[in-house]
Amino acid sequence: MVETIQWTDNAVVMIDQTRLPLEEKYVTCRTYEEVAEAIRGMTIRGAPAIGVAAAMGVALGVLHASERDLDGQFATICETLARTRPTAVNLFWAIDRMKRLYGTLGGHPLAGIRRRLVQEALLIREEDIAVCRAIGRHGAPLVPDHKTVLTHCNAGALATAGYGTALGVVRAAIESGKKIDVFADETRPFLQGARLTVWELQQDGIPATLITDSMAGHFLHSGRIGCVVVGADRIAANGDVANKIGTYPVAVLARENQVPFFVAAPISTLDLTLASGDQIPIEQRPAAEVTNLFGHPVAPAGTAVQNPAFDVTPARYVSAIITENGVARAPYEDSLKKLAG
Amino acid sequence: MVETIQWTDNAVVMIDQTRLPLEEKYVTCRTYEEVAEAIRGMTIRGAPAIGVAAAMGVALGVLHASERDLDGQFATICETLARTRPTAVNLFWAIDRMKRLYGTLGGHPLAGIRRRLVQEALLIREEDIAVCRAIGRHGAPLVPDHKTVLTHCNAGALATAGYGTALGVVRAAIESGKKIDVFADETRPFLQGARLTVWELQQDGIPATLITDSMAGHFLHSGRIGCVVVGADRIAANGDVANKIGTYPVAVLARENQVPFFVAAPISTLDLTLASGDQIPIEQRPAAEVTNLFGHPVAPAGTAVQNPAFDVTPARYVSAIITENGVARAPYEDSLKKLAG
Repeated sequence: MVETIQWTDNAVVMIDQTRLPLEEKYVTCRTYEEVAEAIRGMTIRGAPAIGVAAAMGVALGVLHASERDLDGQFATICETLARTRPTAVNLFWAIDRMKRLYGTLGGHPLAGIRRRLVQEALLIREEDIAVCRAIGRHGAPLVPDHKTVLTHCNAGALATAGYGTALGVVRAAIESGKKIDVFADETRPFLQGARLTVWELQQDGIPATLITDSMAGHFLHSGRIGCVVVGADRIAANGDVANKIGTYPVAVLARENQVPFFVAAPISTLDLTLASGDQIPIEQRPAAEVTNLFGHPVAPAGTAVQNPAFDVTPARYVSAIITENGVARAPYEDSLKKLAG
Repeated sequence: MVETIQWTDNAVVMIDQTRLPLEEKYVTCRTYEEVAEAIRGMTIRGAPAIGVAAAMGVALGVLHASERDLDGQFATICETLARTRPTAVNLFWAIDRMKRLYGTLGGHPLAGIRRRLVQEALLIREEDIAVCRAIGRHGAPLVPDHKTVLTHCNAGALATAGYGTALGVVRAAIESGKKIDVFADETRPFLQGARLTVWELQQDGIPATLITDSMAGHFLHSGRIGCVVVGADRIAANGDVANKIGTYPVAVLARENQVPFFVAAPISTLDLTLASGDQIPIEQRPAAEVTNLFGHPVAPAGTAVQNPAFDVTPARYVSAIITENGVARAPYEDSLKKLAG
């Protein structure tokens, strides 16, 4: 399986997700600023994966920090990484975890602080893979056999440290013996479905069919789709789910056609400080992502564009939220709080 | 305003809709086979426009036909044009109208038959513009003022002989003094919204904002959209509407958010011989439309694709069907039959 992100020789190595599937190119970030830029520019994307990247970025920053005003430098490193993307909460969760650890290391020699922060970042990466496998185990029984799973965007190995959340459920269902295939929404504007999901499923020999986002309704209506499984970027206390733009339409169309709509996400994606999804900040990305495809303009010059990168699916459309600690069902206020422990 | 299709010097001249908005290039078809190829390859598209093109194609075919076995040649011309695209009924409606006229001309001199067929094709074109203006007049009062109209695909001047159906309603609403703007779904895979709708609205100075298809739900939920107006490729007797793939999701999301969903189409788009939309043939188009953008692959080689070009919106999601003869509302079995006369 492809390695999404690794720590090697005091650097962070990532597969460049802007180049896939045409090129399998790896990018090496040697400074925390380079990690921040890789997150902002979507060289690495996917809520759990950018959490791992941010943790490694913090470790990398401290590796190059000087003894003098370490606290000030640490704060700058964390702020820089936190300012990259606003919606996925895993980013802030990972930075906070690194901050908490750093807070316990006051007075330690710098070499020791560095070693512990690197260890923690590596641990976050290892835990993420284990969490995805647990999500898969909990989700696999929910997937109807001999049917098609519809997914949106890429919540696969490439969106995590490995195995995936939504695609982890698909992988686990297949490992448990189910005969399923996947329909992948291409996921405009960034085409994560076409470029990443199809590619990663092909690597594993899982049958995948590519459709445009506009076709999901047609196939949900057709009876072919057994369930929808998607990832999440942030889940509010009431179960509202922020995920890649286009998720909300799929959820509405799934319910309209009595197809279960599952969200697969680690506990680190929960933001129980927010009562509802209305409070989740929605990132606006550059117009050029919509008006240009590979440098080729698809709209007249000067076209006005809206480009929200995420939407919020109200909890009433969500059949279940699959986490590493188990499966939450409505009412989510109770079930999520219980699973979060 | 741009001329979508014209009859000039015994040839059919069309703006090449595969090149817009980057190039305003006109294509001249000198044989009916070239017209058929232009329809199949979507040089011209939009249900009313391909009806006009087919009528002109029939006239062009007979212009080059010989005296010997004219009936056989006429049948071949009509069959060739009818085999180009299966879903839009206006194509068959226009060919049938030319066939009926031809049937009344038995025994006439060939020159006279040719003249009458050319006249009829020109009349169909002129009528189409008048029909669009009437649709606009009937539709304008339905458009909420000071709000945004969402549209999918291109049901504008470029999809008709001029003025447009859905965009005819927008134009008429603005001419009646309403302050509205348009959100245009880009409409993958062929990008008619990005390439054609935005371009044609800019030509007329109508404010337009481009979004991906996946964003329509987000904005329908936001309260900004006053109504949806789309065109149609075929409408069954019960009011089920076949239109560009992605229309059905917009209709479901509109109803879910209490936004009126209007279909604007000429009476020639009605197919009252079909009891419901289940019987409408749905064209499957080449996989390369999904996997390649301007020759640039967006998915791994060998990716399996589904590419239905249309979907069917059940009548229960349609708030009204706006025709040149008036506005039909549910129950459509009665209202459509009445308007069809």
